[in-house]
Amino acid sequence: MLDLQGMLPALTDGDVPRFRQLYQAIRQRILDGQLPADSRLPSSRHLASQLQISRNTVMQAYEQLLAEGYIRGATGAGTFVNSLASDSLQQSSTVLDSKATLPGLSQRGQRLSQLGRGGGNSQLILAPGIPELDTFPWTEWRRLLNQDIRRAPRRLANYGQPQGYLSLRQALADYLRESRGVRCDAAQVVVTSGAQQGIELVARLCLEPGDRVWVEDPGYIGARGGFIAADVQLQPMAVDDEGLIPDAQAAAPRLIYLTPSHQYPTGGTLPLARRLALIDLARQWNCWILEDDYDSEYRYEGRPLAAMQGLDPSGRVLYIGTLAKVMFPSLRLGYLVLPEHLVDSFCRYRSLVDYHAPLHTQAAAARFIASGNLLGHIRKMRQLYAARRDYLWQRLLPLVGSEQRCRLPEAGMHLCQRLPEVDDSALSQYLMTQGVGCRALSAHCLQSPARGLVMGYAGYREDEIDRGVSIVQQALEQRPWQR
Amino acid sequence: MLDLQGMLPALTDGDVPRFRQLYQAIRQRILDGQLPADSRLPSSRHLASQLQISRNTVMQAYEQLLAEGYIRGATGAGTFVNSLASDSLQQSSTVLDSKATLPGLSQRGQRLSQLGRGGGNSQLILAPGIPELDTFPWTEWRRLLNQDIRRAPRRLANYGQPQGYLSLRQALADYLRESRGVRCDAAQVVVTSGAQQGIELVARLCLEPGDRVWVEDPGYIGARGGFIAADVQLQPMAVDDEGLIPDAQAAAPRLIYLTPSHQYPTGGTLPLARRLALIDLARQWNCWILEDDYDSEYRYEGRPLAAMQGLDPSGRVLYIGTLAKVMFPSLRLGYLVLPEHLVDSFCRYRSLVDYHAPLHTQAAAARFIASGNLLGHIRKMRQLYAARRDYLWQRLLPLVGSEQRCRLPEAGMHLCQRLPEVDDSALSQYLMTQGVGCRALSAHCLQSPARGLVMGYAGYREDEIDRGVSIVQQALEQRPWQR
Repeated sequence: MLDLQGMLPALTDGDVPRFRQLYQAIRQRILDGQLPADSRLPSSRHLASQLQISRNTVMQAYEQLLAEGYIRGATGAGTFVNSLASDSLQQSSTVLDSKATLPGLSQRGQRLSQLGRGGGNSQLILAPGIPELDTFPWTEWRRLLNQDIRRAPRRLANYGQPQGYLSLRQALADYLRESRGVRCDAAQVVVTSGAQQGIELVARLCLEPGDRVWVEDPGYIGARGGFIAADVQLQPMAVDDEGLIPDAQAAAPRLIYLTPSHQYPTGGTLPLARRLALIDLARQWNCWILEDDYDSEYRYEGRPLAAMQGLDPSGRVLYIGTLAKVMFPSLRLGYLVLPEHLVDSFCRYRSLVDYHAPLHTQAAAARFIASGNLLGHIRKMRQLYAARRDYLWQRLLPLVGSEQRCRLPEAGMHLCQRLPEVDDSALSQYLMTQGVGCRALSAHCLQSPARGLVMGYAGYREDEIDRGVSIVQQALEQRPWQR
Repeated sequence: MLDLQGMLPALTDGDVPRFRQLYQAIRQRILDGQLPADSRLPSSRHLASQLQISRNTVMQAYEQLLAEGYIRGATGAGTFVNSLASDSLQQSSTVLDSKATLPGLSQRGQRLSQLGRGGGNSQLILAPGIPELDTFPWTEWRRLLNQDIRRAPRRLANYGQPQGYLSLRQALADYLRESRGVRCDAAQVVVTSGAQQGIELVARLCLEPGDRVWVEDPGYIGARGGFIAADVQLQPMAVDDEGLIPDAQAAAPRLIYLTPSHQYPTGGTLPLARRLALIDLARQWNCWILEDDYDSEYRYEGRPLAAMQGLDPSGRVLYIGTLAKVMFPSLRLGYLVLPEHLVDSFCRYRSLVDYHAPLHTQAAAARFIASGNLLGHIRKMRQLYAARRDYLWQRLLPLVGSEQRCRLPEAGMHLCQRLPEVDDSALSQYLMTQGVGCRALSAHCLQSPARGLVMGYAGYREDEIDRGVSIVQQALEQRPWQR
């Protein structure tokens, strides 16, 4: 008979029940070979008295070990350790703990993970793309969320449709038709888990590996990553103060990705003539246009230009938007507007990805939009953000000396401060350590030599803007950031 | 001067403001060429009087057209239609509306979308994998969801971490250690938007295109789709009443995917010896094991075997689970447990996919687990599902004549009724039209000749089970389903 008592640690009072502690301890001894095959365990009565615990505790532990196949036993005949699969068991907890022998990521996996950025720090100030979160009508939102869960929770608890909840698709279609001039109905809308997922879906489903894609340069980093992850070839296209410059002489792409309402990050609004020229090129080349309308709702000068999607009746323009900026980012809801003949295929593939976004959230968002709450919130935020834009711009002017280097943006949630002589990458890394989340303009560039800081104002109070600008100012004065 | 009045439709009272109706009508005439470049528009005063609307309405419409570049005007000099990008504009709304000339999905897109299943019908009865939704503690859930939104909504409103909300990762790690024998802490847990996303992430990041993957045959359809979408090669592995049969002679795979707690869909529980043999093979071949523990919480006979992940200290076993079955499917939350050195790469790639799951939902789920609500709910559901399992099984026995063809499942939410002589695919399609959501066993097969019905019981009352079984019985009696 084994001296099991000598091998076992003392049992403790705590969250883990005693029988489970005992089970785990014996199991470990079996797995690491201290209790070899066919050794006989003490009777439950004997072990209980040795350990001064109740016999019931021991019996529960033995039962679990029996159920899992670690031991065998028959009434009266005693309880024995089973011989397990192979003698390599002992190795398992000893020799092979080193990571060196483990498989790692695949080469594809290494490449894919290097494209991503990981998580941001939500405490940083002047980070681009962050809306004001204190002013969101939280009480109303809570009421809308509760409505379904109170009235008929089951109705929205089961699996839903990959295309998205019908009421939300209807509310989005109405909103996009009326506010953005998008030609669509609910059947063309696919609700996504954020705009990034929309880019991913389009890249995988509309493009072949190796296809050429026009991207703005400077341009949106997330889109670039999404395209490269889908193994397509990026063709950087120059951008001026009005946005992407169409080039009829360039090699024909399979897709043109752009942010026509408010070029990210440089801020231009694509004029009608360029929009039409691009639609014309897309028709000649029989290629797609992917219109990313990420923050078009916040326009301060002039009225918004209607979406390109509405200009092209042939259905070549795919349209992407998000609720992250007009509601809040952690909601994780975006949308695609597609020609109807593509919708079913997108939904089928979506069922392999994440199926659909949470339904209670979708339903609440639908009512938030349909009830007019969204438009009311946007109207208020447009005023607030315009004032913050003016404030940041005024504070920056003395700093950089010239309006040429920082146009007052007509729209959006950030401005683009040009600093052509500065190593913006080193600067932004330093600013990050000081709690300031401006992004380096160069990080958005492929071939463009543009340098500067992309500075968000929408989500920050005047005192935060003051603090952020002071830190930027000190950084520029104290350290040599020249390239 | 043009007779604009004759071209325009009557303005209506409704949701769309009159100025916008007018703007849209004129814009359309410009885009389709009825109003050619350089034609002069009537003055706002003149048009207002013609249309019998206020002059202000006309001025607003003109302003919008000016802002968007459709017309030009100078005070006193009149208002003119702009020449737009090209003469192909006229074509846009006329000739090219045909879908035939549009680009379609890429070949990759066609292939990917064919792998998916699209949406299910949540009204069907006897569908596998659907939990009971009426008994979920909705009031408590609502309270937990409201807590954060009431107290500190802003805190959870911004972008979060791709790895998932820390409290949820902690709660999951505690739960998995204690209830499932998984060796992990919060740093190893990645919160996913459902288990399917976990499979997708592992397939893309741990496997190279062309790598060989063992899948159970019959096996889970979603996993198979996720792997094929990542361009890997499936090696179907036979399954018996105890689950996957390890084959040391087979060509070495790069990953072994399996459902050891409760083989999907045939129901076996993988014995300890096979678990250890597989871990041993994985060590020899230096390959991954992906353990999908989708419904292990519902075990009715014996105690649950601890997870394979906990048997392998070397970190070769990646572990996937979901909250869809123990909470509710539309929540869209699942998790991965990874060796720590992989976590950062997974999170970086995740930022290109959907960034993270909604934060308020994650926070509420964290408290639901940590407060013990989850375990309490599971305990209740285990009793309920055991009774429903017995009920369905009793009702089926007379129907199929033999216990051989339908083992009473030890665990889970469905049973697997063998019908070797039946065209189960045609049968299940017919049943679908009758409101019964059983799945054909053959749909889960690659090389296996198994035929039958996968029938869910967890989410259905006894009267629903009665109705479902009657429909199945009638179908089997009335129609020849022989292959």
